[in-house]
Amino acid sequence: KINADRLWDSLMEMAKIGPGVAGGNNRQTLTDEDSEGRKLFQKWCEEAGLEMGVDEMGTMFATRAGTDPDALPVYVGSHLDTQPTGGKYDGVLGVLGGLEIIRSMNDLGIKTKHPIVVTNWTNEEGTRFAPAMLASGVFAGVHERDWAYDRTDAEGKRFGDELERIGWKGDEPVGQRKMKAFFELHIEQGPILEDEFIDIGVVTHGQGLWWLQVTLTGKESHTGSTPMPKRRNAGLGMARVTELVHEVAMDHQPNAVGAIGHVEVYPNSRNVIPGKTVFTVDIRSPDEKTLNRMRAKIEAGIETICDALDIKYEIEPVGHFAPVTFDKDCVKAIRDAAERLGYSHRDIVSGAGHDACWINQVAPTAMVMCPCVDGLSHNEAEEITKEWAQAGADVLFHAVVETAEI
Amino acid sequence: KINADRLWDSLMEMAKIGPGVAGGNNRQTLTDEDSEGRKLFQKWCEEAGLEMGVDEMGTMFATRAGTDPDALPVYVGSHLDTQPTGGKYDGVLGVLGGLEIIRSMNDLGIKTKHPIVVTNWTNEEGTRFAPAMLASGVFAGVHERDWAYDRTDAEGKRFGDELERIGWKGDEPVGQRKMKAFFELHIEQGPILEDEFIDIGVVTHGQGLWWLQVTLTGKESHTGSTPMPKRRNAGLGMARVTELVHEVAMDHQPNAVGAIGHVEVYPNSRNVIPGKTVFTVDIRSPDEKTLNRMRAKIEAGIETICDALDIKYEIEPVGHFAPVTFDKDCVKAIRDAAERLGYSHRDIVSGAGHDACWINQVAPTAMVMCPCVDGLSHNEAEEITKEWAQAGADVLFHAVVETAEI
Ligand SMILES: NC(=O)NCCC(=O)O
Ligand SMILES: NC(=O)NCCC(=O)O
Repeated sequence: KINADRLWDSLMEMAKIGPGVAGGNNRQTLTDEDSEGRKLFQKWCEEAGLEMGVDEMGTMFATRAGTDPDALPVYVGSHLDTQPTGGKYDGVLGVLGGLEIIRSMNDLGIKTKHPIVVTNWTNEEGTRFAPAMLASGVFAGVHERDWAYDRTDAEGKRFGDELERIGWKGDEPVGQRKMKAFFELHIEQGPILEDEFIDIGVVTHGQGLWWLQVTLTGKESHTGSTPMPKRRNAGLGMARVTELVHEVAMDHQPNAVGAIGHVEVYPNSRNVIPGKTVFTVDIRSPDEKTLNRMRAKIEAGIETICDALDIKYEIEPVGHFAPVTFDKDCVKAIRDAAERLGYSHRDIVSGAGHDACWINQVAPTAMVMCPCVDGLSHNEAEEITKEWAQAGADVLFHAVVETAEI
Repeated sequence: KINADRLWDSLMEMAKIGPGVAGGNNRQTLTDEDSEGRKLFQKWCEEAGLEMGVDEMGTMFATRAGTDPDALPVYVGSHLDTQPTGGKYDGVLGVLGGLEIIRSMNDLGIKTKHPIVVTNWTNEEGTRFAPAMLASGVFAGVHERDWAYDRTDAEGKRFGDELERIGWKGDEPVGQRKMKAFFELHIEQGPILEDEFIDIGVVTHGQGLWWLQVTLTGKESHTGSTPMPKRRNAGLGMARVTELVHEVAMDHQPNAVGAIGHVEVYPNSRNVIPGKTVFTVDIRSPDEKTLNRMRAKIEAGIETICDALDIKYEIEPVGHFAPVTFDKDCVKAIRDAAERLGYSHRDIVSGAGHDACWINQVAPTAMVMCPCVDGLSHNEAEEITKEWAQAGADVLFHAVVETAEI
């Protein structure tokens, strides 16, 4: 078993960097806080005797050598970046849980045939730069590196420039590493495990996603003196699309979800009818056909809404991944580990996207989940217990060591 | 008749200060650009032989002496501040039109018994600091000066501090000046005059307004992994209130209007269900009972919407004026002037609020309107013709000189 106190202390130490306003974190990707968090992780990796490599996307790879120089490494990890109002565990548990299994192996004098590499993927959250899981996507060959560099944040700053600015653009070409397997530990971010009093989620699938960035163009004009029939209200259009996305998700229960989380209104003045709105639709389903049907319904609905309001629209997909089926053997390694350790477990579908979803395209991959209080995530109040963290890291520990072969 | 070329040149000169991005202006109240615009107006007033006074709200009063030292002055004016994406004429025409009638009187050697004062009211637009028409409201005794000083902008900066910072906080106590009458020239900001090919709107009434700032509090959580029935989506709540405001306005045609122009979403991240939204409802009607009925319907509707979504709400009125009936004699002076000058004219209700609406509470007041292209205002593309400006300023000239008595 891993050392849960040490893991917990490291989680709390990392949470001091980029504190939020309500007990959580704001350590968004490629900010100064992100850089500081990376330095702390680097220091811990050095103390654990790991060798650090950084690729051109800023992803950090900390290697513990294996006994067979030719054996393919087993990778573990997740991400250290957070939402603007993020929690202390989303991503961080997976990275520091990976570090903790190395520390525990050092304590116990365990050597493995295959090297083990603890990974911190850049920009998993996708808040500052869409899409999410950007660096793991480039690693898996889904995106081009230079396309990723050209992603811009709300202020127009380029991903590539910001990566350079914070000093974490490495030399290593992206995606050249070959992996025996990749394991990611993550909090569930949903309510199922807690509701069912289950310690471990064995993640068999991940649901698919579309992010559609919608721009509505009406005509800004005076709220008081423009007669109702003369209006071309892009804010009203956005409201109707918000309702539409909700309805389409409700029509595809029990599994589909959908909402609009990101919104910009121009000129955003109390007495001006919005002339332009820009917002991102987020829809998900574990079933690809359902997901694409939802997208088609929303696109058709947007057309109808805009026709009625005499406004123009543009729809740009800014994020997508298909539903994922994780590797049978890796999933089994996790299920077996939970079983062996005596933790209650169930198979589960990940509601969120994860770096593991992309890495699954280039290496055998699976995920372990632990519960989180009230299913709450992407909220500063996100919380887990030390026992849940212990169980998740224990299962990760066993699955990784078994795969890396003693 | 006034000198339309000179008026036009001054309008174009002022528009160089705080240019927008699409041919209009961004000269919001109490910005450096506002200060620069005031300096240019001050210089022009000095060149026209006027004496400048500035009150504690930053309102500028440029006086042309009358022949009778005891006679009450006649006031003209409007505002030089603009919307973030404002036009070149909204407010500016009323101030520089006032200056132009002074310049024309100087040219023609006209002396009046009553002094004439050209006024630039501070913060008419209300974008940066709600409510609109703030300084004229304090002048009329509707608001306390210190309450006005405490209004804050989106960055939390205080009105009082910003007024001091730009150097335009005067010594003169607010509201002590007595007026024989107040006249304001303004563009219509609506489509009626242009549609009917009419030169002059004789403003008999102004419609009333409520600004209701609504805060919805749900629970921010992960868009992908929070099941639909567990959501408390403050963004969906805002969407439904947006539709509600539109419906309530549509139910009170032909005259009522309503929309939401100002919106904030927290944390505003693509994959986070909004936990909080703040937005301002703007509803208007020329009939007070209708206006208050609309408000009641919207407040009741918000309660129903929030109950269904399990979200909390707060409603804070941040702006209000009752419908206005302008002074019979002042209105007649404007109608007679239009008639005498041979301009086509019609009585009209102002859709927007104006400083004249507050000043009407403390002095006999009326307004002249000229058409604007396509009824468009609060948009950088706002446009008028030189001929329309000429007609409006001519009518203002005659009404003011008649009231000030040669
Ligand atoms: N785990 C997580 O929150 N990932 C961000 C991408 C997503 O929205 O699913
Ligand atoms: N004229 C004008 O746009 N005034 C601002 C206050 C309002 O919204 O009516």
